[in-house]
Amino acid sequence: MSDVAEGRSRRSRGGGGAARRAERSAVSFETAKYIERNIPNLEVLDDEALSIIEYNAETILEEIGVNFPENPGALALWKEAGADIQGDRVRIPRGLARELCKTAPSKFTQHARNPERSVEIGGKNLVLAPVYGPPFVRDAGGRRYATMEDFNKFVKLGYMSKWLHHSGGTVCEPTDVPVNKRHLDMLLAHMTLSDKPFMGSVTEPSRAQDSVEMCEILFGKEFVQNNTVMTSLININSPLTFDSIMMGALEVYAKNNQACIISPFIVGGAMAPVTVAGTLTQVAAETLAGVAYSQLVRKGAPVIMGAFVTSIDMNSGAPTFGTPEAALITYGTGQLARRMNLPYRSAGSFCGSKLPDAQAAYETANSLNMGLMAGVNFMLHSCGWLEGGLVADFEKFVMDADQLGALHGLAKGIDMTENGQAMDAIREVGPGGHYLGCAHTQANFKTAFWRTELLDYKPFETWDEEGGRDTRQLASSRVDKMLSQYQQPMLDPIIEQKLRAFVQEKKDSMPDSFSS
Amino acid sequence: MSDVAEGRSRRSRGGGGAARRAERSAVSFETAKYIERNIPNLEVLDDEALSIIEYNAETILEEIGVNFPENPGALALWKEAGADIQGDRVRIPRGLARELCKTAPSKFTQHARNPERSVEIGGKNLVLAPVYGPPFVRDAGGRRYATMEDFNKFVKLGYMSKWLHHSGGTVCEPTDVPVNKRHLDMLLAHMTLSDKPFMGSVTEPSRAQDSVEMCEILFGKEFVQNNTVMTSLININSPLTFDSIMMGALEVYAKNNQACIISPFIVGGAMAPVTVAGTLTQVAAETLAGVAYSQLVRKGAPVIMGAFVTSIDMNSGAPTFGTPEAALITYGTGQLARRMNLPYRSAGSFCGSKLPDAQAAYETANSLNMGLMAGVNFMLHSCGWLEGGLVADFEKFVMDADQLGALHGLAKGIDMTENGQAMDAIREVGPGGHYLGCAHTQANFKTAFWRTELLDYKPFETWDEEGGRDTRQLASSRVDKMLSQYQQPMLDPIIEQKLRAFVQEKKDSMPDSFSS
Repeated sequence: MSDVAEGRSRRSRGGGGAARRAERSAVSFETAKYIERNIPNLEVLDDEALSIIEYNAETILEEIGVNFPENPGALALWKEAGADIQGDRVRIPRGLARELCKTAPSKFTQHARNPERSVEIGGKNLVLAPVYGPPFVRDAGGRRYATMEDFNKFVKLGYMSKWLHHSGGTVCEPTDVPVNKRHLDMLLAHMTLSDKPFMGSVTEPSRAQDSVEMCEILFGKEFVQNNTVMTSLININSPLTFDSIMMGALEVYAKNNQACIISPFIVGGAMAPVTVAGTLTQVAAETLAGVAYSQLVRKGAPVIMGAFVTSIDMNSGAPTFGTPEAALITYGTGQLARRMNLPYRSAGSFCGSKLPDAQAAYETANSLNMGLMAGVNFMLHSCGWLEGGLVADFEKFVMDADQLGALHGLAKGIDMTENGQAMDAIREVGPGGHYLGCAHTQANFKTAFWRTELLDYKPFETWDEEGGRDTRQLASSRVDKMLSQYQQPMLDPIIEQKLRAFVQEKKDSMPDSFSS
Repeated sequence: MSDVAEGRSRRSRGGGGAARRAERSAVSFETAKYIERNIPNLEVLDDEALSIIEYNAETILEEIGVNFPENPGALALWKEAGADIQGDRVRIPRGLARELCKTAPSKFTQHARNPERSVEIGGKNLVLAPVYGPPFVRDAGGRRYATMEDFNKFVKLGYMSKWLHHSGGTVCEPTDVPVNKRHLDMLLAHMTLSDKPFMGSVTEPSRAQDSVEMCEILFGKEFVQNNTVMTSLININSPLTFDSIMMGALEVYAKNNQACIISPFIVGGAMAPVTVAGTLTQVAAETLAGVAYSQLVRKGAPVIMGAFVTSIDMNSGAPTFGTPEAALITYGTGQLARRMNLPYRSAGSFCGSKLPDAQAAYETANSLNMGLMAGVNFMLHSCGWLEGGLVADFEKFVMDADQLGALHGLAKGIDMTENGQAMDAIREVGPGGHYLGCAHTQANFKTAFWRTELLDYKPFETWDEEGGRDTRQLASSRVDKMLSQYQQPMLDPIIEQKLRAFVQEKKDSMPDSFSS
């Protein structure tokens, strides 16, 4: 824990008798530390291929350029930095974007209000955050528009999920709250129902500003100016376009030293070329330009190089998930990010299935494994994603969250200590014996194997007598059980009161809008 | 195609008018070529760790030794080679097993009766074969004991599965046929209902001999003596024991130049130490001894170094699948196999689930991805495995077989040609455009993306109107459709008649036994 975090922790816990009572009665749910990989990444491109892609990416920036529409401030910054400006088009001389990117940190800490839940994003680490953005939810009762009540439930489940390090952002769209006010309720939920790190609003620059101000209440103004307490999602309008609203949000965050994921959103064959290498080239160009722009706004602002990439089904036009082409792009982008010395965001619990069935699980497992092996540092959408991202699914949320435990186990790598080598056990047991009772097994069995908290390992007869339940039914029970056991993490009541007052005041200051 | 295979092909196709008529009317189903990886393997162990494991493995062989019970012939061969024999125990001086293993080929061709379906096992290749061994089957109607009719259906499905290169062996146990006769019916099914390569019987040395003799009818005696036409599964009784029946089968196959997979069957924590490095050490010792023994029987006999490894649930004692520990062992064993310059068998559509549901798919996808990345050369059980291997599932067979297509796509790696780089497309489309209609997309879209033949990519409304089917229901329809479209591959009627006569004669020569 940093000294600053330690100081903040003491301060926020010192909020009077009510806070101390709250602290005493609060139940803390175990959260695993973010993954620190002890296994290598899979590298699918050799140095020559990487150099070609990087060269082509800079050719794109120099010859074709990128658009920054409706954003004279951005154009001015680019002009000053040495780019060629024609209308909205920014052409960036070879080498400039790469040079600008060098001031972005290779690793940063995103602080949580509970310092034990702070995460280090970058290096060999992997931080897992839940699904982001679906307008619908699904549970045992079916599919429907998401509400704020659903949102709160997801934040609670995320808080209670051992292998999830991050509370996320728009876990689902609370469609019953006006568009111009829902960011306030969402942030309040992350801040009060969980103590894990979270994301800020990006749908309007003023909402990014609200996010910063709410963080100033939660963490203290000085702390926020000196530390990163939000990581927010800035999508690039592929191909090669930087939307002024998204850039406006990025500007707010960068100026306030808050982190952004700068991420093309690509359905391959529609927003990028139909080939893997072509998509990688466009991703490289777009993220170079986007990260460079963040550094023009504020040198040293923390950013994550992102890539959200799916394939397209050329028959139906539907985006497809868990495909080999998306995997290859994810591996390749990881290599590009490491050469740029930037944290990397990609992968997730991606699937196209309408139900949390076998299709969903194949596609998701393909994508989660790929994310671990590709060296992803921040995995948004790591649980709960369904139906191409249209649906946040309660059952799949706990199913995926359980599988995230397997990633933790795999990332540990192989223990080569003497205890790991187990020669004494092999000597003790000998040919034809068995290991169940031997001393080494007894000493190690509790920690030797990752164990699911959801999946079924029972004998067939027991399983059959208990109703022969499939994974969805097991997951549905687990959702109900977790929500019934939820307890709110301690928060200084004075801070909570200030947050609620801020939200109420903001809401009262403007009419409802359900359009934007 | 080798000259020999070419010659055989001409011969077998020259079997008179009936054969020519059969050839004209036969429908050929497309089968992909075995996977030739254009991506690297994931290497989780460094050289130092590998050297420790190898050193420890030889310590086991030298100090603890391995058992070859009820097998005086094996003990004599070992003694002659320089091992120390005490009772059934064989202690192998450091360096000896490794030296003996050097005569095993690093790669071999297993010929199919259709030369286009022959496979190269070793190097960067991956050959996919179906599930092996389950006494039960499951379909839309539920779980029941497997019959010969089920077996035939699985062979037909395997023959029609594009991404499956191999017909396998005991795809399920036909429990309605006497144990001492079922190998004959199973081989006849592989030989007549499919034209893909297959496996021989290992349940008795005499049944291995029957397998060889049936191949001599199918391929010609001389061809079988000079070429490998079967790859059969020889399990080691872990820890460190080489069962005389299995070794008897190995002896028959090795003497006849037929391939064996020499494979420990390990539930970690029961048949091997509870730690990953300890299990790897035991696997290394057991496969060193087993492969060395195959070379004592016949120098140069083709073998595959295998590892069937699962974890154990320490609460229930049930084997568990798709776990991180099994993955790490699979990665590590791949590295050991490559250092021994041997083909490697591991992974599969492993799962513990009772149903082809999300649990089954997560576990299976974890295991299939791991198999590809671990450098596996021969993947038995690559489709259809359910319930810890107790059940061969029809729906899961086609679900997994479809996912095997994704492995083919991933293994292709990234096309770095000018067409792959797609710079013309990026120039054509420019910022804010879209790629769907551009020339490059039109020229490439048919081959750009792997496409499932099973999973659902339809819009929600269409899917909902069509009944909102889950993956199991889609798979059940696909099974029925495939079986209704099945057509037998061409086979010279004279050969088929000889095979049937052999089977009948063998069956008539002995009383039924349902026990062994």
